Amino acid sequence: MLENYGTQNVLTLAKKRKSVRHFSKSSFPIDKVIYTLEVAVQAPSGANRQPWKFIIVDDQITKENIRRMCEEQEKLFHEKVDGNLKSWFKTKNISYNKPFLTEAPLLLAVFSDQRQPYATESTWLAIGYILLSLEEVSLSTLTYTPSYPERVKAIFGVPEYYKLEAIMPIGYSEDSKPKEPRKPLKDSVYRNFWGHPLENL
Amino acid sequence: MLENYGTQNVLTLAKKRKSVRHFSKSSFPIDKVIYTLEVAVQAPSGANRQPWKFIIVDDQITKENIRRMCEEQEKLFHEKVDGNLKSWFKTKNISYNKPFLTEAPLLLAVFSDQRQPYATESTWLAIGYILLSLEEVSLSTLTYTPSYPERVKAIFGVPEYYKLEAIMPIGYSEDSKPKEPRKPLKDSVYRNFWGHPLENL
Repeated sequence: MLENYGTQNVLTLAKKRKSVRHFSKSSFPIDKVIYTLEVAVQAPSGANRQPWKFIIVDDQITKENIRRMCEEQEKLFHEKVDGNLKSWFKTKNISYNKPFLTEAPLLLAVFSDQRQPYATESTWLAIGYILLSLEEVSLSTLTYTPSYPERVKAIFGVPEYYKLEAIMPIGYSEDSKPKEPRKPLKDSVYRNFWGHPLENL
Repeated sequence: MLENYGTQNVLTLAKKRKSVRHFSKSSFPIDKVIYTLEVAVQAPSGANRQPWKFIIVDDQITKENIRRMCEEQEKLFHEKVDGNLKSWFKTKNISYNKPFLTEAPLLLAVFSDQRQPYATESTWLAIGYILLSLEEVSLSTLTYTPSYPERVKAIFGVPEYYKLEAIMPIGYSEDSKPKEPRKPLKDSVYRNFWGHPLENL
């Protein structure tokens, strides 16, 4: 049953997919999220250690605790931040408020076992898998990383050698903002040596 | 034209996709790799900085230089490694030899701009996008990271604030080894708190 989703190609999914900060309160079958985790665990990982753990949070009180904890830390971070990042936050209207942490019907907290080789790299690769498959099942998300993940992760009861990589709110989008623009491919792709253009682009 | 690939769903692609260390020398249209990079740059990134750079290496001399450089460093690494990783290398028959770096028709070197927020995380997420879209166009790869990427990256003429994240050999698979097994989902997924099972699994 899980394999019945599809069949848009990967480029279509990747282009349609955008980060979303406003979610409908409408619930959805948890099977959709399980589908994306079935996808995620197929990712390769350093020495095939599969260093990821996922906590699906659908309990409202827990979501509220997570939000409060994150906002406390974000407030500290936003007081300290300056320069480019500060002006980017301002342009994008990003504050220490994280309402999506309680508004989305479900949060997916993602951890990596730091004892394993390339744990963070492997886990983010798996997050890439999750994003594309969420789009496939018409769900939206944001790869939100708390500013001080070490302080936030305690709330999940996680062993000390696990790192909190992201807390992803998941739901149907109610965010009308368009996708952030991407640079043309030729700005990011070279041939054989740094700065040499690939003629086909 | 690039959007004509597909239409297997993401779970099918993810399940079929395996890491490959032996490649056919058969060439393939470079458009297939461009397709996967079109996908990659659609990935989200910290503050939308798109911190990735990709170098497509199809020059044989350059590939040979890369291989020699990597093998020198791997040799040093393999002399030092011990414990679990050493025995994993042995079981998997992984040595300091990296023939795939010259046998694959093309290498994709992936870099991240370390001046940007979450540069490594964002870049590996984009690598996840690449893996699924490579599978879609029937190409195989391996997310190989040299043991001492700092020493290897000089060969590409890369600015110092870029980190070499991976060198991915790309080609048609001639690797008969089956995909490494994955743990059951219930070992990696909890509900609301660490260790609490998700009943649906």
